[in-house]
Amino acid sequence: MGWHYAALEERFRRIAGIDGALAILGWDTAVIMPKKAATERGEQLATLKRLSHDLLTHPETGEKLAAAEDETDLDPWQQANLREMRRKYRHAHAVEPALVEAIARATTVCEMTWREARAQSDFALLAPQLEEVIRLVRETASVTGAALGLSAYDALLDAHQPDLRDAQVVPLFDELGAVLPGLIEEILARQAASPAPIRPTGPFAAARQKELGRSLMARLGFDFEAGRLDESAHPFCGGTQSDIRITTRYREDEIVSALMGVLHETGHALYEAGLPKAWAGQPVGEARGMAVHESQSLLIEMQACRSPAFIGFLGSELRRAFGDDPGLRADNLLRLYSEVERGFIRVDADEATYPLHVILRHRLERHLISGDLAVADLPGAWNDGMRELVGIVPPDDRRGCLQDIHWPVAGFGYFPCYTLGAMLAAQLFGAAQAQLPGLLDAIGRGDFAPLLTWLREKVHGQGAMPRFADLVEQASGGPLAVEPFVAHLRGRYLGETV
Amino acid sequence: MGWHYAALEERFRRIAGIDGALAILGWDTAVIMPKKAATERGEQLATLKRLSHDLLTHPETGEKLAAAEDETDLDPWQQANLREMRRKYRHAHAVEPALVEAIARATTVCEMTWREARAQSDFALLAPQLEEVIRLVRETASVTGAALGLSAYDALLDAHQPDLRDAQVVPLFDELGAVLPGLIEEILARQAASPAPIRPTGPFAAARQKELGRSLMARLGFDFEAGRLDESAHPFCGGTQSDIRITTRYREDEIVSALMGVLHETGHALYEAGLPKAWAGQPVGEARGMAVHESQSLLIEMQACRSPAFIGFLGSELRRAFGDDPGLRADNLLRLYSEVERGFIRVDADEATYPLHVILRHRLERHLISGDLAVADLPGAWNDGMRELVGIVPPDDRRGCLQDIHWPVAGFGYFPCYTLGAMLAAQLFGAAQAQLPGLLDAIGRGDFAPLLTWLREKVHGQGAMPRFADLVEQASGGPLAVEPFVAHLRGRYLGETV
Repeated sequence: MGWHYAALEERFRRIAGIDGALAILGWDTAVIMPKKAATERGEQLATLKRLSHDLLTHPETGEKLAAAEDETDLDPWQQANLREMRRKYRHAHAVEPALVEAIARATTVCEMTWREARAQSDFALLAPQLEEVIRLVRETASVTGAALGLSAYDALLDAHQPDLRDAQVVPLFDELGAVLPGLIEEILARQAASPAPIRPTGPFAAARQKELGRSLMARLGFDFEAGRLDESAHPFCGGTQSDIRITTRYREDEIVSALMGVLHETGHALYEAGLPKAWAGQPVGEARGMAVHESQSLLIEMQACRSPAFIGFLGSELRRAFGDDPGLRADNLLRLYSEVERGFIRVDADEATYPLHVILRHRLERHLISGDLAVADLPGAWNDGMRELVGIVPPDDRRGCLQDIHWPVAGFGYFPCYTLGAMLAAQLFGAAQAQLPGLLDAIGRGDFAPLLTWLREKVHGQGAMPRFADLVEQASGGPLAVEPFVAHLRGRYLGETV
Repeated sequence: MGWHYAALEERFRRIAGIDGALAILGWDTAVIMPKKAATERGEQLATLKRLSHDLLTHPETGEKLAAAEDETDLDPWQQANLREMRRKYRHAHAVEPALVEAIARATTVCEMTWREARAQSDFALLAPQLEEVIRLVRETASVTGAALGLSAYDALLDAHQPDLRDAQVVPLFDELGAVLPGLIEEILARQAASPAPIRPTGPFAAARQKELGRSLMARLGFDFEAGRLDESAHPFCGGTQSDIRITTRYREDEIVSALMGVLHETGHALYEAGLPKAWAGQPVGEARGMAVHESQSLLIEMQACRSPAFIGFLGSELRRAFGDDPGLRADNLLRLYSEVERGFIRVDADEATYPLHVILRHRLERHLISGDLAVADLPGAWNDGMRELVGIVPPDDRRGCLQDIHWPVAGFGYFPCYTLGAMLAAQLFGAAQAQLPGLLDAIGRGDFAPLLTWLREKVHGQGAMPRFADLVEQASGGPLAVEPFVAHLRGRYLGETV
């Protein structure tokens, strides 16, 4: 192993040590920190972030990268690791520390204002600060793009999903955006002809929900000796590879969607847990990007756990825990878990309409970054897009362009990952079914071992070794495409045989 | 404010950010970390410790200290802060990184071996590794002492309690060691003539214990918006000033000693919480040393909460929570909380015999560091000392020189702090009683506000502004002395009026 390359591994191991500490502290902040600790914790997080960034962007990192790239004795994993180190360095090094700090300050203020603006449904309140955030994001994207040889918006995509380019996203989203509205019409017509599902209202004791959630997580392959399930206001999956921390919240009058939330986060967790342990703490040992990450949660939730096979199993588990409530029978659960409705809110959207929310945001954020769309014109453009894509117009900006936190905190270039992940999930699950004939039967018995073994080999265990397109191709047998996702929707919601 | 001084404040703020992160991660490791995360967490902790140490010992720190010491416009707090910065720098900078790493490695191995050796009561197993640890501690103490102008053992004392010197400890411990054995004889004779206390066995439901513990903590002045109470195998007080984390453990057949443990840790917590907020993150904003820290937990536990006044109050609270168990009546609790017994184990020792365990360890560790006592001779010397001081000889080394973790993890120079803290606690509580005439009445009503106000002014709010001897003198009216502690013991255990 090359001398300079070895020094880089040591440096990235230290960076991973800091980032891992940040992940645990982030969990602590969201889940158990007493409220008066916020300022002190903010200082701790800022200090560690700066140390991590300083180590990554240090001139020595650049020198050693250049020297290591001349070393000839690296094996393929080491070469891929070096490639990913270079990518991280380019992204971080391109941005001057003053700009990093300006964005940190601007987003802190903008996020607070956004909470206020959303509560009051007052876009004018947010506009000036959002403009400033966008100005700084554009500057960041522009210098990063210059360093990477990319357009500004591609630089933003690349930060979340390496190697993803807008030239790939646009045709996929155009195709999907053209198909979905008609498909939704068909689904809604079919749904109107069926009986409405019963909404089970419990009460569902929190302790039993927790027990059931844990037992399902264990079935999926979650290792409670290397992770935890806790409670927080906004469920998430955090922590580190050996200490993965999922959160949920318990409402005693609701279980159907909360339980699916736990399974969704477990999909993220399984990906992190399955990353190559030999490369822990190295860039090549990380997930292959956020579109791939979203594919793993959606594969578990949407493909596996909302399948009729699993819902049959889930119904028995629910009735065993909470008694024979008719709302918990499999046929009713199936209807509940496949309801489609045109709504204003992305996070409440079903599987079929969700991509339209994403396509809208993708269109708008490209133009916000390019400058073609002025911030002042955002509410109008939003509502026009909703009318065109979803067929409804939000009555106020709270349920419109003020609903998401992403843009106020500079999260541009992320939204496409949700829907690319949904597409990839359908594509991967199709490939898994083709290769594992008894797959759905096993899932119907609550046995996820065959699926997990397949995912570990094809996706999780690959880490960031293959590039995005190669991972997709090797795991699913073809490039990312709209067709498998649409076929999945037609199968599930229109009863068509795939 | 001087330019160089300001840069130092910024540097120490970053160090405090890292150290605060370490404190929270340390809590997480002890309380909730899943077990397979141990290696990964170890990497995170090691990385952060190294970053903190690197920042402190960086040549720039030394340059700026020298430059700041020439700045003439510093106010007294800034001057004291600079003095404490210099002390920290001297301690850390004296030790070569290779020696720091050698100690870290040696203590990790030695701690593991100690657990095994203690379980098997096999000192020979531990001896070679303990010898290596002592060799490295001696080297550290010698270079640190050279940098500070101190003897090796004084350098070790100074690391735990700044400005504490062995020339102060030796006469205090000689005096105390001469008085206590006879005093204990008297106490045991008096105790033999009284009825034995009833041991209440519950069951004491964990949920109620927790509720009662929390309500007593709140009475003492613990702010649950700036701290937590959780469970762990080994109770401790950790966290940071705005996020103080006490742990305890619940056994349903025992409440008397567990509850006192919570109050003890609350004493530590109140000190941390009361440190000067304006100096948070700066050396002068830290506690004045570990002897002072121990004084604060012992003042709350031994002076305030084991007073007959408070035990009357505690008895009613206990009977309200758990019913009218005769074992929970005040007269019985008083007997339980003032039992004296010659025992082998320091952590189980009562207030009167505890100092003898400490005096023994102090005598032995001075000679281990000077080289006058060989590791091979430690078990014999231990047993001789136990016979002389406590009047009993442990039947095996498990209950003798293998009982404490301190030496295997290089914790030399700490033991004296326990007993100096007990002495200081008696001295401070005496001063508080003299200055606040209704103090014990208030405590008897469960009202700790007068005591806390006094402690905040005299001790907590002083941070590390005064030097150790000045703090003792200003708060208690005289230098640290044996007499107030002995008078306290004679009052409590022999019924003598102070």
